[in-house]
Amino acid sequence: MAHYTRKDILELPDLFRKNFVNSLPGLKPAMVVGTLDTQGRTNLSIVSQVIHVGARPPLMGVLFRPGTVPRHTVENLLAIGYFTLNQVATSWIDKAHQTSARYEAGMSEFEAVGLTPWYSTGCPAPYVAEAQVRIGLRPVERHRLSANQTDFIIGSVEEVFFPENALSEDGFLDPEKLGTAAVGGLDSYYSAKKIARFSYAKPDRDLSLLDDPA
Amino acid sequence: MAHYTRKDILELPDLFRKNFVNSLPGLKPAMVVGTLDTQGRTNLSIVSQVIHVGARPPLMGVLFRPGTVPRHTVENLLAIGYFTLNQVATSWIDKAHQTSARYEAGMSEFEAVGLTPWYSTGCPAPYVAEAQVRIGLRPVERHRLSANQTDFIIGSVEEVFFPENALSEDGFLDPEKLGTAAVGGLDSYYSAKKIARFSYAKPDRDLSLLDDPA
Repeated sequence: MAHYTRKDILELPDLFRKNFVNSLPGLKPAMVVGTLDTQGRTNLSIVSQVIHVGARPPLMGVLFRPGTVPRHTVENLLAIGYFTLNQVATSWIDKAHQTSARYEAGMSEFEAVGLTPWYSTGCPAPYVAEAQVRIGLRPVERHRLSANQTDFIIGSVEEVFFPENALSEDGFLDPEKLGTAAVGGLDSYYSAKKIARFSYAKPDRDLSLLDDPA
Repeated sequence: MAHYTRKDILELPDLFRKNFVNSLPGLKPAMVVGTLDTQGRTNLSIVSQVIHVGARPPLMGVLFRPGTVPRHTVENLLAIGYFTLNQVATSWIDKAHQTSARYEAGMSEFEAVGLTPWYSTGCPAPYVAEAQVRIGLRPVERHRLSANQTDFIIGSVEEVFFPENALSEDGFLDPEKLGTAAVGGLDSYYSAKKIARFSYAKPDRDLSLLDDPA
C-alpha cells in the first residue's frame, strides 16, 4: 500500500492534490443545480457534493465551494428562496460537465451548453428538462464551514418530478432504469450496474436479496 | 412525469418515504466509518452521506443520523479525536451492509460481520483491512443541523492508504481499478463502468476526452 500523510498531501502539486482528494469518496452523485439570479437570469452548475440529509422532513444538503459554482450562486439561491437539483443521466454527461466552465456574467449555462430550462408552477428556479429526476428545494439552513469557508446549504425538498416506471413498489427510484451517472474525482463519469439489493440488516439473521440483479 | 409535493412525501408510508428520499441523490459513495469508544472497543458502520469538502487543506464531511450509526458514534469519535473512512469494494458489499444491523453494546461490528481491523501508527481508530482505500481523519468541526438534529462532522484528512497501481499520473484514484462500490437508496449496491473522462471545461472550447474508457 502507498501511504500519504497530511503533510505529503499539502505538498502535492495543486491539480494532483485536487484530483487525489476529490477521488477519496469513490463514486459520487452527479447532479446539476439550477438557480435564478435576482434579475431572473438562469444559472446551472454541476455538483457532486450532495447528500441526503433526512426523510422526515425530506431534506438534502449541498456543499458550495467558492470558485466551483458561478458567481453568487449561494447568494442568489438564498435571495430567490428556491433552487433545483437535477440527476445527470449518462446520455448528457458532456453537457453537465461543460456547466463547470466559467462563463461570463449574463451568459446562462443552459444556452451555453445546450440544456433546456423547464419550469413548474411550484418553483421559480429552473429545472433541467433533460433530467429524469428533478427536485425543487427551498434553502432552510446555511452552515459556513470555518475549516475552508465553504457553504453547506440544507434544502427542504418541496417537490420531485420522476418517471413513474423508475419507481419500485416500495419507493425506490432505480438508477439503472433512470440511466443515472456517477462522478469520480473531478472529471470522470460512470454508469452503474446493480450487483445486489439487500434486506434490512438484523444482528441475528443472514442478509437476503430483495430482488435479482437485472 | 409523476409528481410528488412535499405534502405527498410527508404522507407516504415510512419505509416507502425512506426509500424514495434516499434515492434522490442517485448514486452515492459506499464507505464504512471506523471508530473506537472510550473503552477501546471498535465500531464500524456503513455511510453513504459522505462528501469531499476541500483539497487544501484536505477535508471530508460525514453526516451522522441518530439511529443509523451505532450508539454514541459521534460522541466517541469526538472523544477519541480520530475516525476512519474506508471505501467499500464490490467484493464485500454484503459485509458492509450488515454493519448497519443494531448489534448489542460491546459487540464489535468487525467481528459480527467478518471484517478485519487494521491499524496504522498514526491513527488509533480502526481501519478495515479489506478496504483498498483507507482514510484517517481528525474531526475538526461539528455542525448540528437544526432542521432534523443530525450532526455534520468535518474531518481533516490525516493520512491515506491506497494501492499504488490505482493512482493515475495526475493524482486520480480510479474506482474501476479499485473495484469501488456505489449505493442507491438504502440498500442497493452497484459497480461502476467508466464512460468518459473529460478535460477541464472552458467557455470557448469543446471538451476532449482525457483518456479512453477501459
